[in-house]
This record gives sequence, structure tokens and C-alpha cells, in this order.
Amino acid sequence: VLKLGIIGSTGHTNYVLNGLREHEHEVVLAGIAPGSDGENIDSLQSKAFQARYQPKAYLNGMELLDQLQPDIVAIACHFHDHARYVIEALNRGIHVIVEKPVATTLADLEKVKYAYGQSKAMLVAMFGIRYTAPFVTAYQAIQEGAIGRVRLIQAQKSYRMGDRGVPFLSRQTYGGTIPWVGIHAIDWVYWLSGESFETVYAAHSAFDNKGHGELEATAMCQFTMSNEVMASVSMDYLRPKQAPSHGDDRIRLVGTEGVLEVRDQQVQLINGREEGIQVLPLLPKRELFTDFIDQVKRVGTCMVSAEDSFYVTEIGLKAVISADEKRVVSLAN
Amino acid sequence: VLKLGIIGSTGHTNYVLNGLREHEHEVVLAGIAPGSDGENIDSLQSKAFQARYQPKAYLNGMELLDQLQPDIVAIACHFHDHARYVIEALNRGIHVIVEKPVATTLADLEKVKYAYGQSKAMLVAMFGIRYTAPFVTAYQAIQEGAIGRVRLIQAQKSYRMGDRGVPFLSRQTYGGTIPWVGIHAIDWVYWLSGESFETVYAAHSAFDNKGHGELEATAMCQFTMSNEVMASVSMDYLRPKQAPSHGDDRIRLVGTEGVLEVRDQQVQLINGREEGIQVLPLLPKRELFTDFIDQVKRVGTCMVSAEDSFYVTEIGLKAVISADEKRVVSLAN
Repeated sequence: VLKLGIIGSTGHTNYVLNGLREHEHEVVLAGIAPGSDGENIDSLQSKAFQARYQPKAYLNGMELLDQLQPDIVAIACHFHDHARYVIEALNRGIHVIVEKPVATTLADLEKVKYAYGQSKAMLVAMFGIRYTAPFVTAYQAIQEGAIGRVRLIQAQKSYRMGDRGVPFLSRQTYGGTIPWVGIHAIDWVYWLSGESFETVYAAHSAFDNKGHGELEATAMCQFTMSNEVMASVSMDYLRPKQAPSHGDDRIRLVGTEGVLEVRDQQVQLINGREEGIQVLPLLPKRELFTDFIDQVKRVGTCMVSAEDSFYVTEIGLKAVISADEKRVVSLAN
Repeated sequence: VLKLGIIGSTGHTNYVLNGLREHEHEVVLAGIAPGSDGENIDSLQSKAFQARYQPKAYLNGMELLDQLQPDIVAIACHFHDHARYVIEALNRGIHVIVEKPVATTLADLEKVKYAYGQSKAMLVAMFGIRYTAPFVTAYQAIQEGAIGRVRLIQAQKSYRMGDRGVPFLSRQTYGGTIPWVGIHAIDWVYWLSGESFETVYAAHSAFDNKGHGELEATAMCQFTMSNEVMASVSMDYLRPKQAPSHGDDRIRLVGTEGVLEVRDQQVQLINGREEGIQVLPLLPKRELFTDFIDQVKRVGTCMVSAEDSFYVTEIGLKAVISADEKRVVSLAN
């Protein structure tokens, strides 16, 4: 039985808690701890208890790593502390599932990559939207050639602002709206196109952020990619509370043989197969946590690799530099 | 009665021919002529005859200007010849309605602006999509504060390729997909936001253009604008022939108080007025030609000014430079 610890409850711990249900015979939630100064994990604790798990509560993440010595750790504390715990875990040979972005600075990301290179442990970042039914369906269709070669992509994230906590209010703890929100759309662009990023020009603005300090309420990135593919990623926190859902995730991929869109949790396709717009039957959603457990047990592979996790984080962080410095940033390695 | 001449039949002469019907008592189509080497105006001639107009056919545009001496000339020849005829017409005090872009090079555009400054004649470019019902409705709603201040914009043009004629195949005669197709979306961004452009980073690619020479099948521009507004404009010729329509024009404007979208000839709005997505009742479409005639008669004003026509053309041409040279181009004047 694998021992699991969770550090922090600021990010999407539900990927882990929900996934855990199917693995109760092989994974036990043995410990939880706050990861960041002032981080409150009451909600994580009550969710764990509601699910009848009885994790031991540690004072902080370092104690959890040292005393619990888990096989796997999920890290979802304040975003600027992700990298620190990832490195500590990897150095101890503990497998890591970490909230995106993996790091909030390029310097921290380099340290994470070094630690990963030295470690035998596995790592995945929570690019969990890949695992939802519309995105699994879109990926499969594109792999099967539904739109030919991808040539142009527009992707969108749009959220309600609501009340964001203190870690969102400063760049130092938050990292920026591009690496927190936009990073998902950057991930889709990368994953669905199969192309690599060449340049980015980005913009972001903290105007009209409803009192949320340095948090950028709007941001936009334009990427040039290999094979003269181009992509735009837009993100905002201005979705009205009257909207029918919290978020409005979209992507439109224009290919040589068709156009595919994910919108309103649907997948729409236009190509030579039939006249008009086809709405694809959705494939079942998958579970990131399940895939990662299988990978740890060496019976499967995550759709999100460690390399993907690092690469997409890097692109997001370089886009922040582009937006801050108002210049094109090269993404070629 | 105003004498009207039409030079060329490569662009959207239907704005003029359709508009003319309501003005037969005050405007007479007196002459037509090809504007460019090798330009065939048979289709214009037969449309004119079908509508029971009896314009005199001139050998070329210069003869039409000199011999017919029209009050108004519509110019819609090969795109690189627009500027030449606009200048000749303005120098003769003839009012001009010209296909976009007004010019295909910045040097030509400067000459046009100079001629306009010296002339008492009026000018409008065929930014006719502003006049369609969804865009009139969107403009009105935004003016009335439906979404507060505009913060972020995504706009899209998507067309079927079909068979494009020879003038589309070389940059020299075509000007580029950004100033031919994308310019409409640039115009919407400008008109609906009320902001001015500050920088552009653009990309375009002639890959997969189905044998259309230098024509770019995909292109994309990201703009920064005044007040930290940001905008992305995407365009492609890859819309499959099985699609339910020739074109797929869209714009999404995210504001401080709501989100408005034009899509599928509809206007959707989310704001504080009611729960969920509102589909706005469409206002009636308007006629660019009618407005221009009223302007010439000094009893009205076009929604598209001469200054708008020049400015949007300039932004499109500078975006081409950005895409060609793969660098950010400043748009501040």
C-alpha cells in the first residue's frame, strides 16, 4: 500500500481526493500539512474526514516529508512554494503530483528540473483539464486526423473573479495570471497541436481587478510555433456572476482538413465526413491521479509527462516576462 | 442627380449596387470601367444591366474619371490599384467609396492621405460589416454600457478558400491576408472598443494555401491598445466547404460589467441585467452606401469616417510588416 501525503490546500486537491476513491486498496492518505506561511488547511481536513480518511496532521510540509516519509506527495500550497516542496520531495525519492505552475520563477524551475534529473521519483503537474471528457475527445479526434495538420489555434480561459485569497494578491506569491490561469490553455495548445513554441508576445493588466492587488484581470499571449503554426491564448477574470458557469474554457483548432472546437463542454467538428457541424459523442473522462498511480506502479503512463509539466510551466513564465517587458521573448531551446 | 461611376469589379461592388436601389431618384450609375490590367468587369456589367441601369463602359478607370467626370466614384479593382484611383479622384474633387484596404503599401497610403487633405471630396472605405445587423446591435449595446469598459477582445475571420483569382496570388497585387481579410476584424476592434492601437505582433503563413501562390492561409495579430486593453485578431482561409456558411465572423468583447459576443449572426450578452446568456434582438442593418450619399448631400454622416478608413488600413499594413519581420511594431503616432 502506497502512503500518500498532501501539502497545502490552496490548489486543486480535489484531483487527488476524488481520484483516491478508486484506489483505497492501494493508496492511503496518511498525512496532511499546510505548505505555506499562514495557509489554512481546515477545508482539506474536513473533506478528508468526510471521505472517512484519517490522515495525521503535520505542522508543516517539511515535517510531513521527514516524519511520514510518504511514497507520494501531492503539493498544492501557495504557488510560490510549489518548487521548494517539489525539490525536497524529489531529493527524498518521493513521487510528486504538484499543482501548476511547477514553479513561479524560471530560477526555481531550473532547480526543480535539476532535482528531477537527479531523482528516481516521478512527477506530474495538475494539468487535469486534459483529462476531462471534451479534451480527451478532442485529442483523440485530432490524433485520428479529423482536421489534418493543425495550422492555427485560439484558446480561452475565462473565470469569475469571486473573492480570491491573499496569495493571489501579489506577484511574489501568485506568479501571475498567465502561469496560474493561462497555463492550461498553453498546455492544450502544446498537447493538441504537437508543435513546439518558438516565440511569444504577451500582455497583461491588473486594471479593473476588483481590489485584487497585483492580480492581472486580463491577459493574452500570441505564440509562433514550429511549422509556422500560430496560436493565441486569452484569459480573464471578468466572467459575470450571472454567467451559466464559473468558467468558460474554449479552444478552436483550424487544420488543413477541418476545424475543431471545444466550447460549452462540447466538441464541434467541421470536416469532409459530413455536411455541417458535427457534435462529437464524448469519450469518458479520465483521472489524472489514477494514471499517475499506474505510472508509479509502472503499469501505465500519465497523459502529462514530467517534461510536459516543466515545458508548459517554462512557456508560461517566459510569457510573463514578455508581458512585463513588452517585448517578444524567444522560446527556442 | 449625382453621377456615379464604378471602377473595377474585383471587390465588393454589391455594397454600391444594392445601395443604389434606394437612391435611384438621386444617384445614377453613369459609367463603369475596369481599373486594373487584365481586369474583367463582365459580371459588373451584367449585374448593372439586370438592375436596368445603363452605364457607359469606359476602357479604363482614368477615362471614366476624365470623360464621365462623376460626382462619386466607387473603386473596387485589384487591391494594389485602389490608392492610385483614390488619389486621381480626390485630386478632381470626386467623392470616393473605395474597397478596403485603401492602399496596399504605407507609401501609397501616405499619398492618399495627402490627396485627401488637399481635396474637398469625401471618402469612405467599404468597412461594410459594421453595417450588418449583429454589428450595429453590438455597437449600440456597448455604447449603452452593456459591458462597461471594454478590457479584452478576441476577433475572428474565417473563410472558405474556394478558387481565388490571379490578383490574390502575389503580395504585390493582393497586399496580404491581414489587410484584405483581417482588416475587418481590426476595424471592429477599433470601432467597438473606442481605444487606439499601441503595438502589434503578427504572424502569417502561406503554408497549405491550396496552390494560391503567396496568399497567407492563416494569420494572427495581437494588439496592445490604450488603457491596457488587449486584442487578438485571427484569420484563416481554411473553413471547410462542408461548413454551414462561407464565413465565420466572430468577436468577443470582455468588459468590466459583462461579456458580449457576435457569433453565427447573433449577439449574445452576459451582464447584470439577467441570469444566463441573453440573445439580443437584432437592430435593423444599415446601408453604407446610403449613409455615404447622405454625407455627400450633407444631411448625414457615415459610421465609417475617412480617418477611420486610413487608420485601420495603416494598422493592417503595419501588422504585415510585423509578420514579415517577426517583430513588434509600434502603432503610436
